[in-house]
Amino acid sequence: MADSHVDFMVVSAHPDDAEVQMGGTIVKLVRKGMRGVLIDLCDGEPSDFDAPGERVKQAQRAAEILGVERILLPFQDRMIQDTIEIRMAVAREIRRLRPRTVFSTAAACVHPDHEAMEPIARAAVFYARLKHWDRVPGGEALADSEPWEVDRLFFPHCKLEPVWGDFAFAVDVSETYGLKQRALAEYRSIFKVDEGDRLLDLYEAEDAHMGRLAGVRYAEIFRAHSPLVVDDPTSFLPGVHA
Amino acid sequence: MADSHVDFMVVSAHPDDAEVQMGGTIVKLVRKGMRGVLIDLCDGEPSDFDAPGERVKQAQRAAEILGVERILLPFQDRMIQDTIEIRMAVAREIRRLRPRTVFSTAAACVHPDHEAMEPIARAAVFYARLKHWDRVPGGEALADSEPWEVDRLFFPHCKLEPVWGDFAFAVDVSETYGLKQRALAEYRSIFKVDEGDRLLDLYEAEDAHMGRLAGVRYAEIFRAHSPLVVDDPTSFLPGVHA
Amino acid sequence: MADSHVDFMVVSAHPDDAEVQMGGTIVKLVRKGMRGVLIDLCDGEPSDFDAPGERVKQAQRAAEILGVERILLPFQDRMIQDTIEIRMAVAREIRRLRPRTVFSTAAACVHPDHEAMEPIARAAVFYARLKHWDRVPGGEALADSEPWEVDRLFFPHCKLEPVWGDFAFAVDVSETYGLKQRALAEYRSIFKVDEGDRLLDLYEAEDAHMGRLAGVRYAEIFRAHSPLVVDDPTSFLPGVHA
Amino acid sequence: MADSHVDFMVVSAHPDDAEVQMGGTIVKLVRKGMRGVLIDLCDGEPSDFDAPGERVKQAQRAAEILGVERILLPFQDRMIQDTIEIRMAVAREIRRLRPRTVFSTAAACVHPDHEAMEPIARAAVFYARLKHWDRVPGGEALADSEPWEVDRLFFPHCKLEPVWGDFAFAVDVSETYGLKQRALAEYRSIFKVDEGDRLLDLYEAEDAHMGRLAGVRYAEIFRAHSPLVVDDPTSFLPGVHA
Amino acid sequence: MADSHVDFMVVSAHPDDAEVQMGGTIVKLVRKGMRGVLIDLCDGEPSDFDAPGERVKQAQRAAEILGVERILLPFQDRMIQDTIEIRMAVAREIRRLRPRTVFSTAAACVHPDHEAMEPIARAAVFYARLKHWDRVPGGEALADSEPWEVDRLFFPHCKLEPVWGDFAFAVDVSETYGLKQRALAEYRSIFKVDEGDRLLDLYEAEDAHMGRLAGVRYAEIFRAHSPLVVDDPTSFLPGVHA
Amino acid sequence: MADSHVDFMVVSAHPDDAEVQMGGTIVKLVRKGMRGVLIDLCDGEPSDFDAPGERVKQAQRAAEILGVERILLPFQDRMIQDTIEIRMAVAREIRRLRPRTVFSTAAACVHPDHEAMEPIARAAVFYARLKHWDRVPGGEALADSEPWEVDRLFFPHCKLEPVWGDFAFAVDVSETYGLKQRALAEYRSIFKVDEGDRLLDLYEAEDAHMGRLAGVRYAEIFRAHSPLVVDDPTSFLPGVHA
Repeated sequence: MADSHVDFMVVSAHPDDAEVQMGGTIVKLVRKGMRGVLIDLCDGEPSDFDAPGERVKQAQRAAEILGVERILLPFQDRMIQDTIEIRMAVAREIRRLRPRTVFSTAAACVHPDHEAMEPIARAAVFYARLKHWDRVPGGEALADSEPWEVDRLFFPHCKLEPVWGDFAFAVDVSETYGLKQRALAEYRSIFKVDEGDRLLDLYEAEDAHMGRLAGVRYAEIFRAHSPLVVDDPTSFLPGVHA
Repeated sequence: MADSHVDFMVVSAHPDDAEVQMGGTIVKLVRKGMRGVLIDLCDGEPSDFDAPGERVKQAQRAAEILGVERILLPFQDRMIQDTIEIRMAVAREIRRLRPRTVFSTAAACVHPDHEAMEPIARAAVFYARLKHWDRVPGGEALADSEPWEVDRLFFPHCKLEPVWGDFAFAVDVSETYGLKQRALAEYRSIFKVDEGDRLLDLYEAEDAHMGRLAGVRYAEIFRAHSPLVVDDPTSFLPGVHA
Repeated sequence: MADSHVDFMVVSAHPDDAEVQMGGTIVKLVRKGMRGVLIDLCDGEPSDFDAPGERVKQAQRAAEILGVERILLPFQDRMIQDTIEIRMAVAREIRRLRPRTVFSTAAACVHPDHEAMEPIARAAVFYARLKHWDRVPGGEALADSEPWEVDRLFFPHCKLEPVWGDFAFAVDVSETYGLKQRALAEYRSIFKVDEGDRLLDLYEAEDAHMGRLAGVRYAEIFRAHSPLVVDDPTSFLPGVHA
Repeated sequence: MADSHVDFMVVSAHPDDAEVQMGGTIVKLVRKGMRGVLIDLCDGEPSDFDAPGERVKQAQRAAEILGVERILLPFQDRMIQDTIEIRMAVAREIRRLRPRTVFSTAAACVHPDHEAMEPIARAAVFYARLKHWDRVPGGEALADSEPWEVDRLFFPHCKLEPVWGDFAFAVDVSETYGLKQRALAEYRSIFKVDEGDRLLDLYEAEDAHMGRLAGVRYAEIFRAHSPLVVDDPTSFLPGVHA
Repeated sequence: MADSHVDFMVVSAHPDDAEVQMGGTIVKLVRKGMRGVLIDLCDGEPSDFDAPGERVKQAQRAAEILGVERILLPFQDRMIQDTIEIRMAVAREIRRLRPRTVFSTAAACVHPDHEAMEPIARAAVFYARLKHWDRVPGGEALADSEPWEVDRLFFPHCKLEPVWGDFAFAVDVSETYGLKQRALAEYRSIFKVDEGDRLLDLYEAEDAHMGRLAGVRYAEIFRAHSPLVVDDPTSFLPGVHA
Repeated sequence: MADSHVDFMVVSAHPDDAEVQMGGTIVKLVRKGMRGVLIDLCDGEPSDFDAPGERVKQAQRAAEILGVERILLPFQDRMIQDTIEIRMAVAREIRRLRPRTVFSTAAACVHPDHEAMEPIARAAVFYARLKHWDRVPGGEALADSEPWEVDRLFFPHCKLEPVWGDFAFAVDVSETYGLKQRALAEYRSIFKVDEGDRLLDLYEAEDAHMGRLAGVRYAEIFRAHSPLVVDDPTSFLPGVHA
């Protein structure tokens, strides 16, 4: 099978989801020399505090801060559902960009767009690896591309949701947290960056709490559907209480 | 049955446990005019940073800050187990002080002393309401006191533990959090108050995160064994995401 | 933001769902002076034992017994799914009636109509509070109304489902249970009221069991997605076993 | 290995526990021609409403009503803990009576005696099947008896506990429920049989609710530690909602 | 109500699902003299290793090996979703064939077709028992058939999924496992039968593991939504560790 | 703090527990150049098939095959409980050997000795890091040694238990599985190595199943109490279904 083109892909409903959920992890991977790309299913319009079109520009600047490419798909904010069409559109991007790792928002979110992301991402990863779409009525969107099988699919926590008592792993993002916050500060269309924003406060509070529990300053948390498989169980970072 | 003597009792393994786990709630209840008492099973010796005897003095000052009475039982730090003797000692205090509500540390803690608290508290609450201890061999410690039945038993979260994804309720402690922090700052025998202490940082991070999730600045979280029963389900505070 | 127009709203798939799941709670809130409204997504036709049109009349009489208003939406029994259209129709009612508390059927029900209610209700509550629907293609149904943010969203138990081992709270409905039963007895189109009905027997058995566990005669149980936040944890009713 | 001597054994902390938790199931098995025996770890003294010695006589009459033998072990009510001594005493009875099925109270009970039963029963079943106790210091109590391996160990629900959302199976006890109630009515030392007793009401409410959920009048519910293995999955009784 | 026409029905997304998930159980029921039928929602095209049309022939031969009839519905592989149309098509088969027990794939599968099966099967079982479809707009597909109420609905484990820590029951299929493997070996369109196939290896590894845990050679595992109700709890097979 | 003396320690109730639960992982770590030590709490006497003293010799040979040191503590098989004395004895070994990672048997085991291991290991790890045992009455066993804080504490699965649906991670042990099996084959005192042993068959079936689920031949599975913290989430091995 051909080589991967990017190391990781983050599939999100809206511009800013990737940053909120795993901005620190994204910068961390980029600093390790990996190539990453963000896929936003919609442009996030209408936004609360800016004119139409601003949010996409802010998202572009945020991606530059994080050091990743950003791709916009043409679906409608507030109305994202797990349809064959959206699955196929995401699967096309997976086949085109060939990521080793895919991230997408974990299920059961307050926002129905978020809620749709986990089934969309799982189906898209599955569709991307299947062959013979040319022989499937309705499969045209994938008929002319090569199958691609991703290594792992992980789901960061949606911070509007109740906290997770159980998750697969936390990533220490203490050193890259400043860049995450700078990227989030671009989104003046949706956050009251200067006055203090209750959502930004919540996001920071979660990352700080997860960090302290992990014995570091900031951490982002992830779930997985398939079990984690490791080569060396002594390679995890020390736990704050073993 | 006779009247209660105190409104609430907090039964903890060590001095500082009550403050860490629910100091803001304690002040809140005191400000509502309730009388509270803290029961510490041991004096918390040896402590890391002070001479023997200092921690108990610090605990006394902390109790004054919170506005509650503090009672010390003579068990040994690091070696608290769910024994008949400890159950009886706590049940005696429950019968003597007649609290309506009892709080004690929730199970499954990193520290084995903490782990013992939930079974001790549950058994003590149960022992306290049983009659006829004069007819039980080994029941002398409760033979000469009147039964007392508490209304509710709740368990605050032990902050050394992984966060809870599910809990019974959170208490908004934004307005009383300053006093909680002042009470904790008394414990120079166990926290590096001036230099910054990774445990104090963790405790504050949890309360801030739980607060933000509840739409307020700080919150403390609790579990219950029996279901919550309410008279009016519209009397809960607004949820940040309904 | 403007004042609420009703205190609570119950959104259900069928006429009789609100009564079965939380009829006692409804009367209780009404007796506290609150204004409530029931939203039924369909007319419940066809019914088993009566001519078309009877069930809606029975529902109207039941609402009068409970002391609430009842509104009928034009969807089809047996075919209720979580669609954008239904979300919008419910969100319109939320914006129009401005309830502080919304109740809807909890997920995972035997009946597929019931199963759709939790995602519909969550999305409708979320849609209702979003602004700028005039700038959303397909958002016309909400384009001309003001946003409304509800305080809390709770989910009563669907009694066709296995019992819940864990729930957020129970409401003591001992004193209003007679009216709940009178309201249910109106539904001769679906229950064999006079001969004894195995569904009515099941419903009463659950309420009686939940009541006994809560130390009262009858109780109705509820779940919540966001954590409960309270001002005073000593204000819960006494537990039967603390 | 030699034949079993009894078909089933119920190991309980107190006289009346077996009746409350699974009295209907006991009668059902007896009516199928099985031989059963109840093991009570203590005599249940002191009781609330009768003179010392009465509860044991009541227990004996209850056993006769159920159609089983009853054996009293010499441990102390309120102080039953998971000790080597109690494990051995129960294991001795298992070896002597050779039951195919053992029942004991499920874990996590309000009463600390109940809480100890599941670990005691599991250890006793395990001890009973081990050989060579003559070579174990402290193993004298089992040194002179033959090993016995039980087929299954099941745990009925303790009705003081919150209801189970998940359990292994329910037994339809509609036809034998009258005898269960007659057996319970013997225990005038602990229940206010004539005036109405809130505990008896709770017990009946649980059995009625579990029965209605199972499509019958009364049912008792059980958990298992090891998975259920069946020869024919179509042999379960019909479910009320499939 | 009229008699059943078949004893059991297995409703699956693809040819081979029934065999993989419960082939040993199917043969076991057939050997007890029961009549079974498999419903495949699609023909499983395109397949990886054979020409179009081969998989259906292989499925037919596999059904003959298992001893059951096989019926093909006209839906599209990879695109099976929980729609009213599919629910109705399955409900039609249930009404026509009148099975006492229905089996279908348990929820939460890697493959989105599998994920849709549990809601489809639950809704179809529910639709099948409802009357008066002639009075439901869109209900024509069920308007001319008699209602049928199945006794039980069970869900075998989808072996692409993480293993279940909790399930309702295991069926000992040691004696019929050879036929299951013969049936699976027919599917050369999807498995590399001769070279060794990592999926076939996984399937066998699960059945062997579940068997060993149940004290036998091979077992297949199932979940249920409604609780299991039994007449005799001593009729389960012995557990390997009680 | 001084350097570690060993890289990892496995604390088990009996000789053979470490091999059964994580023998493949042990060899894997040794092959990476790590130094490991096994702590057995007892000598495993009496054994079923050999004279007293043989099992310890077999354990010694097994340790040599695995490439680790083995230390025997003087507690009694079948009677291991979570006592202060055992906690201290294990904590002494932790302080003496200074392991970075400690492994011990996960809770909730069929065998009561196994059940005690998780609380013993957690308390021992906690005791080992506490200072000032010279000032604790009863703390003499730790009074003259230096504190040691382990990095992580992990719990392999006890294979007598029901399988875990959820665990922290699996270790691919395909390449070292032969040595695990050779080490287990030394234990002729407890396994019928030549005739085929139902326990050895069960152990192999679990490892093979967990391996196939992880996309490899054999895997061993582990739980953790504190969350996993990683530096690079893309460093996990590929999942078989992403």
